[in-house]
Amino acid sequence: MDKVIRIDMSTLTALIEEAPPEMERLGGRGLCSHIVYTEVPPTCHPLGKKNKLIIAPGLLGGTAAPNSGRMSIGAKSPLTQGIKEANVGGVSGHKLARLGVKALVVEGEARAGGPYVVKIDRKGARITSAPELAGLGTYNTVARLRAQHGDGMGILCIGSAGEMRLAAASVACTDPDGRPSRHAARGGLGAVMGAKGLKAIVIDDAGTKLRQPLDKESFGHANREFVKEILERKATKLLMEYGTVGGLAFLSKFGSLPTRNFSTGSFEGDARIGGKGVAETNASRGGSFGHVCMPGCVVRCSNVMHDEQGRFLTAGFEFESCALLGANLGIDDLDAVMKLEKKCDDLGLDTMEIGVALGIAHDAGLLGFGDGAMALELVEEIEKGSVLGRVLGQGAEVTARVFGISRVPVIKGQGIPAHDPRKQPGTGVSYATSPQGADHTGVIIFNAESTGEMIAESRKKQINTSAYDSVGLCQMAEPNPEVMAGLLSSFYGWDWRPDDVICLGRSILQKEVAFNRRAGLGPETDRLPDFMTEEPLSPSEKVFDVTEDVIRQVLEY
Amino acid sequence: MDKVIRIDMSTLTALIEEAPPEMERLGGRGLCSHIVYTEVPPTCHPLGKKNKLIIAPGLLGGTAAPNSGRMSIGAKSPLTQGIKEANVGGVSGHKLARLGVKALVVEGEARAGGPYVVKIDRKGARITSAPELAGLGTYNTVARLRAQHGDGMGILCIGSAGEMRLAAASVACTDPDGRPSRHAARGGLGAVMGAKGLKAIVIDDAGTKLRQPLDKESFGHANREFVKEILERKATKLLMEYGTVGGLAFLSKFGSLPTRNFSTGSFEGDARIGGKGVAETNASRGGSFGHVCMPGCVVRCSNVMHDEQGRFLTAGFEFESCALLGANLGIDDLDAVMKLEKKCDDLGLDTMEIGVALGIAHDAGLLGFGDGAMALELVEEIEKGSVLGRVLGQGAEVTARVFGISRVPVIKGQGIPAHDPRKQPGTGVSYATSPQGADHTGVIIFNAESTGEMIAESRKKQINTSAYDSVGLCQMAEPNPEVMAGLLSSFYGWDWRPDDVICLGRSILQKEVAFNRRAGLGPETDRLPDFMTEEPLSPSEKVFDVTEDVIRQVLEY
Repeated sequence: MDKVIRIDMSTLTALIEEAPPEMERLGGRGLCSHIVYTEVPPTCHPLGKKNKLIIAPGLLGGTAAPNSGRMSIGAKSPLTQGIKEANVGGVSGHKLARLGVKALVVEGEARAGGPYVVKIDRKGARITSAPELAGLGTYNTVARLRAQHGDGMGILCIGSAGEMRLAAASVACTDPDGRPSRHAARGGLGAVMGAKGLKAIVIDDAGTKLRQPLDKESFGHANREFVKEILERKATKLLMEYGTVGGLAFLSKFGSLPTRNFSTGSFEGDARIGGKGVAETNASRGGSFGHVCMPGCVVRCSNVMHDEQGRFLTAGFEFESCALLGANLGIDDLDAVMKLEKKCDDLGLDTMEIGVALGIAHDAGLLGFGDGAMALELVEEIEKGSVLGRVLGQGAEVTARVFGISRVPVIKGQGIPAHDPRKQPGTGVSYATSPQGADHTGVIIFNAESTGEMIAESRKKQINTSAYDSVGLCQMAEPNPEVMAGLLSSFYGWDWRPDDVICLGRSILQKEVAFNRRAGLGPETDRLPDFMTEEPLSPSEKVFDVTEDVIRQVLEY
Repeated sequence: MDKVIRIDMSTLTALIEEAPPEMERLGGRGLCSHIVYTEVPPTCHPLGKKNKLIIAPGLLGGTAAPNSGRMSIGAKSPLTQGIKEANVGGVSGHKLARLGVKALVVEGEARAGGPYVVKIDRKGARITSAPELAGLGTYNTVARLRAQHGDGMGILCIGSAGEMRLAAASVACTDPDGRPSRHAARGGLGAVMGAKGLKAIVIDDAGTKLRQPLDKESFGHANREFVKEILERKATKLLMEYGTVGGLAFLSKFGSLPTRNFSTGSFEGDARIGGKGVAETNASRGGSFGHVCMPGCVVRCSNVMHDEQGRFLTAGFEFESCALLGANLGIDDLDAVMKLEKKCDDLGLDTMEIGVALGIAHDAGLLGFGDGAMALELVEEIEKGSVLGRVLGQGAEVTARVFGISRVPVIKGQGIPAHDPRKQPGTGVSYATSPQGADHTGVIIFNAESTGEMIAESRKKQINTSAYDSVGLCQMAEPNPEVMAGLLSSFYGWDWRPDDVICLGRSILQKEVAFNRRAGLGPETDRLPDFMTEEPLSPSEKVFDVTEDVIRQVLEY
């Protein structure tokens, strides 16, 4: 894994370089953030020619390590205006790694005659014009590309949202069934891809093999131990049985589930749209749990959901989507929530950002709570490219701005995930300090009692998350520095201890914060919206009360 | 002038306080920025209850000093997210000062039963509900309030744009003819007023007298000298004869007139919409130059414009409006430009921000250059409150964001005024460093040769402007520190030298920059948009090439 492929969309040329030495021990998020930090001017316009879209498998991508196929996509974000890494499953992380591609760097700006498709295979990279794909949803895009290139490809693509350069646009990635159900969703990376005139990337790893470790025996041993550890966990069993959506009812009972535009923390319809409802629906319609979102996964938390006629409706129906498109809009009709989620997947939209934006649409008088049909109509406005659709598709902050609304659940311009920080203050500390804007991955904290604990725990979790996002491991596998040090050392022959993994995570965060500061996101942006410190969250009646001075201690990595 | 009136819109109560000692030597912009800096949390939402709207006459408001009736309105800006002072003529600065009101501070947030009207007179302040004014344009609002309260009132009001909380919303102020033709236009202060549920402020100074100086003789002498100096200037004669619009053709020939969305610096229709066209139109229709926008003005640069039928069309038709609604949209039909300007005045909109936003609307495919009828239709969308109208009414940056456009002529979120910085780099240095966002008042620099000169000149001009904006003097009178020191010392009995005036100006800028930094507007925002450093401006083919490091030297006040 030693190649960097640079695609210049201004000139439609591909350049294959040998990865320079400083990239050797970087992958995934670490490599994306390194390249953005090094090569992208922090004050550039995210949709301009100076921004770069980076796609990088993790350090253990393409290997036999369990849950190691996660892939990172990075750029300067049109949503947060800061650095962004969105982490995604699917088949492409492994495929890129097996092709020896450490990173794909998409540069320049859209040229006439597009949109374009890039094909990556053992022979290199080719860019072709594909005007016939313009405006297509992700499902149709993938269907056309599979018909043309065969079923074995990994495909990354954008829907019409990305083509419209909407800041809630995702990059869709195909799962093992060839469906674009996995999304590098947050931060508008689909809009960056759209601004470059790139509709899809087709990855063909035919003729490649599993990447081989330097120390086969140690690596095999480390893998087996890690698999055992994962499978022994109670959480793994629950994830396999109910998926991530299984936690929804628990969080509702706990009182931290964003409900009706973050106005309460419990949703009376939690059973219908949560794990119970999803399980009953699957039992009666033939949908199923226990799917993998990427090869080599032993957690198997993905699902396939069927409609009332027992036909495929959507895959990868996750907790955050269900909470923000369901409870946060007061919708307890599971079918309505699933249809919203599927429509977002097809348009290439971040379900979370859209859920928060639709909450704002309620306050703007556009949507009644519980009205799934109207919510779907609003998402269809995005599909139509109407002005209202474009506003919603730019996310919660722009929606609030356009409608003159001052109660806005965003941090650094990004919609707050489905853990209300008033009842989960430790999570709030993570939201406020993550260089990614309000971010849900790997930084959720339930059980910290004191602010000191919250600070320590948030810092530790953010460091660990940055590390495993760079190794390519999934958060559901709960990899710790010991596990990562063991796997990396045996695979690469490095002499890494847990502290080296921590150093890696820390150095990534430092670069990300530094980029943000230069991009104009100062310490003043490391905070929650005012209303969360003033408006008590029922039923606990808690407000978020960790002060900004305390919060910022997290950043002392 | 020793009272501060605090209006709490949450409780509908007015409190009259004695101004504290630290406000004694502050007025206008200095006082607005002091109160915002001291009392408004920098990270608060501009449309939330923690923001405050400050209205303050200058230190020489209500006196016999020439051109001393300018008034400042300040708040945290919903457009720039930083501190904002918008300076305006009209009759109310003098009236408030004669009533002894140093500042009016509007606090809290909109309450049901509104919008409300505040009446200020010798007896104090009264708040009344006025639902019948909801949604009215500024002309009708003023007509109703004059019918109710009499013709002698000073009136400040918002149109529907402010009620809709649009970030291009202005506060309209009546001129000596009782028309709402003068606007505290920039930065969305009308939206802040709207968010507080305040439709209008009626100021009745019946029973008050001209404020008397401590040293009558010296003050009289200083006044006479200042008047003589103003009247002897060639610029004054030109302003009296042609108004501010008289400079348009010159700037077009010079090559710095924003034309067709800042794509060139010269407009072939400059004669039609510039001083020549306006003068010919007035000669044939009975419109006129030489009006005052406030009592006591000796420059008389305002105008009254008639339509084709010889009826009143608009007043205060200024260069910046004409350039940005005319040349910047490729419109050479003076009537079309005047109608656009009048519509903005009536809706309570910043003509400059709307001109820049409509330039973006061209790039979004909504408007052909030169199409005055379509431009008016788009402004009417704002009147209708359609989603498109709301987007445009939020200003150029939001319009660009919604339509995915990366070439955006704004600085700190505010549309760039009608002096293209590529051909006027000194002006560009001012735009970049003004705490107000791209700002045109008192900081235009034509003749600096070296960057060193630009830095020194911009710093000097910004300091001087901050000072005269605090004294209440108009930029067209070109007051310098000597003049201000003489007037203030003789009026108040202070022993001020020119250096004291410079210190005043400097301290205001320091507070404004400090507020911005805490609000999250770091040094990274002190810059021009990328395209101005890359895209040459015809016919001079210049790009803006003063580096950011150099620019920031201005801030070493």
